[in-house]
Amino acid sequence: MGKAQHTRAAILHKALRIASGSGLQALSIGRLATEMKMSKSGVFAHFGSSGALHDEVLAYYRAEFERRVLTPVRQAQPGLPALRLLFEHGVQHVGAASTHSCFYFSCAAEYDDRPGPLREQVKAGVRAWRAALLDSVRQAIALGHLPAGADAEQLVFEIYGLLLALQHDARLLDQPECELRAQRGFDALLERRAA
Amino acid sequence: MGKAQHTRAAILHKALRIASGSGLQALSIGRLATEMKMSKSGVFAHFGSSGALHDEVLAYYRAEFERRVLTPVRQAQPGLPALRLLFEHGVQHVGAASTHSCFYFSCAAEYDDRPGPLREQVKAGVRAWRAALLDSVRQAIALGHLPAGADAEQLVFEIYGLLLALQHDARLLDQPECELRAQRGFDALLERRAA
Repeated sequence: MGKAQHTRAAILHKALRIASGSGLQALSIGRLATEMKMSKSGVFAHFGSSGALHDEVLAYYRAEFERRVLTPVRQAQPGLPALRLLFEHGVQHVGAASTHSCFYFSCAAEYDDRPGPLREQVKAGVRAWRAALLDSVRQAIALGHLPAGADAEQLVFEIYGLLLALQHDARLLDQPECELRAQRGFDALLERRAA
Repeated sequence: MGKAQHTRAAILHKALRIASGSGLQALSIGRLATEMKMSKSGVFAHFGSSGALHDEVLAYYRAEFERRVLTPVRQAQPGLPALRLLFEHGVQHVGAASTHSCFYFSCAAEYDDRPGPLREQVKAGVRAWRAALLDSVRQAIALGHLPAGADAEQLVFEIYGLLLALQHDARLLDQPECELRAQRGFDALLERRAA
């Protein structure tokens, strides 16, 4: 990695921290330059505009998210083992142990009523996550780990709800025991299908 | 209601709409004055500071939320009928039919990492909602509508997750069928306890 690329990666890392705390709309080139102790024109040279910066921060998060949550699952046995691992990585990512909120969840709240390309980019990232969950559920059904009649979309909706509730309770309500609640809820969802 | 109170209520209504779309931090006296076609000093006369305005917008939302979601449930039979009604009102409030996101959910994302009195105020509002759900679950257990061994806190956590997933999918992913998914998830949670 050359010096320019190093600087660029450091700027994106800082930009994501600002946007995670204050929202993507609050991330400006000026604020980023101040926090990086760089000149505004120095940051501009890397991104050109606030719009381009927002776009790149989302792409940077997506790469980080996929590396941490989705990619490791490709090594797992397909079906239920992959689903369990996806859930486990999701819990680590959004739960109390994580230093920041899941940026997809905060962007969902920020962009759900705000049409435009950033909203589409958030949706695409979330859909990739949901598609990974859905694939593993469908594989689990195909392999007989879950019954043939199980409603895969319904199961993914309920799993995603557990992860949303986990982040909500861990971060807003300061309830670290909610990690156990999310895990119990997940186990019960699978048991109910198995029963 | 006098003229001053009417104006104040109209300002708070507009302020809540701005804060629901852009976040509470983005709500300033200046922006509110522009959208109300009032002078800044006119708005200042009602609230005094941005901090006081944010505080009052949250109090205004809490009153609206309790009137729409919590108060009607006091007329229901205690236990399971009250729980079902609370869930139904929650679905109406956060689902696709609603014109705005639930302000508690967007504030949870905005304030989960931002300590201070506004975060405490959001938490208090959310806790009142959760307490109402928990009371009705405990009543349902006491009345034998749910089995004596049911974990009330766990059930409330899972119900709240369904409402979070409903809003997420309805508003970000544009999936109106998720209202049915939330309802199915709720019915399955109760059935699983009854079984």
